[in-house]
Amino acid sequence: MTETAPTVPELSRALIGAGQLFHARGWVPATGGNFSARLSPERMLITASGCHKGELTEADFLVADLEGQPIGTCRKASYETLLHCQLYQHDPAIGGALHTHSVANTLLSRRYERIRLAGYELLKLLPGIKTHDAVVEVPVFENDQDIARLAARVDAHMKQDPATPGYVIAGHGLYAWGATVAEARWRVEALEFMFECELRSQLLK
Amino acid sequence: MTETAPTVPELSRALIGAGQLFHARGWVPATGGNFSARLSPERMLITASGCHKGELTEADFLVADLEGQPIGTCRKASYETLLHCQLYQHDPAIGGALHTHSVANTLLSRRYERIRLAGYELLKLLPGIKTHDAVVEVPVFENDQDIARLAARVDAHMKQDPATPGYVIAGHGLYAWGATVAEARWRVEALEFMFECELRSQLLK
Amino acid sequence: MTETAPTVPELSRALIGAGQLFHARGWVPATGGNFSARLSPERMLITASGCHKGELTEADFLVADLEGQPIGTCRKASYETLLHCQLYQHDPAIGGALHTHSVANTLLSRRYERIRLAGYELLKLLPGIKTHDAVVEVPVFENDQDIARLAARVDAHMKQDPATPGYVIAGHGLYAWGATVAEARWRVEALEFMFECELRSQLLK
Amino acid sequence: MTETAPTVPELSRALIGAGQLFHARGWVPATGGNFSARLSPERMLITASGCHKGELTEADFLVADLEGQPIGTCRKASYETLLHCQLYQHDPAIGGALHTHSVANTLLSRRYERIRLAGYELLKLLPGIKTHDAVVEVPVFENDQDIARLAARVDAHMKQDPATPGYVIAGHGLYAWGATVAEARWRVEALEFMFECELRSQLLK
Repeated sequence: MTETAPTVPELSRALIGAGQLFHARGWVPATGGNFSARLSPERMLITASGCHKGELTEADFLVADLEGQPIGTCRKASYETLLHCQLYQHDPAIGGALHTHSVANTLLSRRYERIRLAGYELLKLLPGIKTHDAVVEVPVFENDQDIARLAARVDAHMKQDPATPGYVIAGHGLYAWGATVAEARWRVEALEFMFECELRSQLLK
Repeated sequence: MTETAPTVPELSRALIGAGQLFHARGWVPATGGNFSARLSPERMLITASGCHKGELTEADFLVADLEGQPIGTCRKASYETLLHCQLYQHDPAIGGALHTHSVANTLLSRRYERIRLAGYELLKLLPGIKTHDAVVEVPVFENDQDIARLAARVDAHMKQDPATPGYVIAGHGLYAWGATVAEARWRVEALEFMFECELRSQLLK
Repeated sequence: MTETAPTVPELSRALIGAGQLFHARGWVPATGGNFSARLSPERMLITASGCHKGELTEADFLVADLEGQPIGTCRKASYETLLHCQLYQHDPAIGGALHTHSVANTLLSRRYERIRLAGYELLKLLPGIKTHDAVVEVPVFENDQDIARLAARVDAHMKQDPATPGYVIAGHGLYAWGATVAEARWRVEALEFMFECELRSQLLK
Repeated sequence: MTETAPTVPELSRALIGAGQLFHARGWVPATGGNFSARLSPERMLITASGCHKGELTEADFLVADLEGQPIGTCRKASYETLLHCQLYQHDPAIGGALHTHSVANTLLSRRYERIRLAGYELLKLLPGIKTHDAVVEVPVFENDQDIARLAARVDAHMKQDPATPGYVIAGHGLYAWGATVAEARWRVEALEFMFECELRSQLLK
């Protein structure tokens, strides 16, 4: 995170831009996906429930605490808010979290319990990786409409494996994060690129 | 639908926007596709015959009654107007209807009599579905240049199965609808996403 | 063609727009493709040699006669000008001709001597087709750097089969045409859509 | 190169435009890729380390000598600067060099030691090729985080085979070049098009 705390308009702009890119790529169909950014040690900015993530305006965000309770508004935060809370509580260095639905992450997550990525230059975008000559496993969690329960499973996994570079919910989508919204977005771009490679690679076998 | 009736300019703008998105996705090639929105209990706004759905202007719409007769104009409504009439007559809660031609819906509809969708988070965009843990069947109708006859077949199916979440005409395209143009568009996005998943999934088998 | 002859600026705008769309689709990579429109019974407007078809400006066009000789300029017309001349000489009703390089037309044309299209609603965009329940064959010609010789082969084929709906040069690309630039563009969109369907359909077999 | 030396603003604009196109195509995910242009016999303009190549501004470039040393700035040049230096030192006629990460070049380079291209019209975009009836081999080098060592291997190859039309680093991406940034960009477009054809062609076998 930057040294002076980022403001709501700055973070909104970064999240709106991420949404426009993901929409162009087809990664936030319908009202799918949700995005957040940390405002302060105890607060986050998060997309409101039910809006289209490719066409966000400043009015589509609300402030919530890290339990997911909206502050100063009666609007409802995204249905999956607790998954964002889990990340910000797990690691104070996390400044932004982005969730996408892509065809590649959907298909791979319906087939595999983890997605193994090896030998890609873009692995260097992931936390702690300095070379293409590495192996990373992206965990896949079974989908669950009980988001609190799902968040607890994610949290248990990340406590056991702090190097988790992102995760996928089966038939649903990717969660990725970073110190800033920009870094989170780059990780989404890198992971989705490698997922598309893996998916097309399956076809060549 | 909103509490005050939507106006022609408002609905035109929503349909123009849907067309631009679908064009970017490649879902309305050439003069394919057609779009409508309900103006009142007895009238709809619908795209005129022969225009490109990705480059619509307000001049490309006309008002018609729910029998498909244009009102106050000598222009011809879309060739498939009766399929829109069927939807608005079938359910007074339907406020918008969108028809797209995609590679995925074309290919799936040439192979299957119905398209089965199960386990996708995006199923929750479809009418009455609250969980990914559901199975939805999108019916496929044989194509027919006699649109009145095709509309009657669709109507018979929907009377028998009111939960029909959309339908596909074989080798031709998808019809989806919603309470508003926005909801109809989200359902198109969700269905096309799942169709693309199904198509690519066939390749992996 | 319209009743008053179209002007150079009008036709340039239509061709520039076609180029922008084809570029967005990836159908005019590098300096590939070329476009023309009929200005009068004996003259055409055509893209100059070596420019990028996705970024055309009015300065990228020149006027030529139907033998391919530039008029009032020392610039060179597109390398494949004689293929455009063939079309305008063959049928006075042709007002626009567009040539695209797509992955789908390239791959199909490297495998087949003709591309058979049947049962698609979009067949109705092709000349003389009124129903999806039709079969159309798009001929594939072997590529040849001797454009005069290639044009003669195309011409012989079209004289024998006046219903030719477009043609593909193997490993190279599609030529399509229409009474106007708009109609030519719609046919490109329709043919490329069906080619993509055919290509992906091969994978499902 | 043009007769008067191109300026920093002119070259920046050309590189920014290349980045926007490659981003639209998905060829510069995250902070992947890097671009340069020759400013004078002994200097080049090159993208700074760590920026997104699809969203470049003039501030994202720096001047460096052909050993890769930044001039008049304390900013760091792209991690892969020495690969650009190799090209400009190898051939004084090279005026621009572009590096992209695409799904197609990534997958092909993980499978083959060289990528063979034959029979494509777009081969004519490559240096010295006048006909589609040619065979070109794009070499694939093993990836290496030691860029000096990698540059030496590339240089040895190009000294032995001066007709090298571009090269790919395995699991990483393509390097292409030309007398100008425009020519380099056209070669990227042509090579990526043919790579996509080759990849999809594998699926048809």
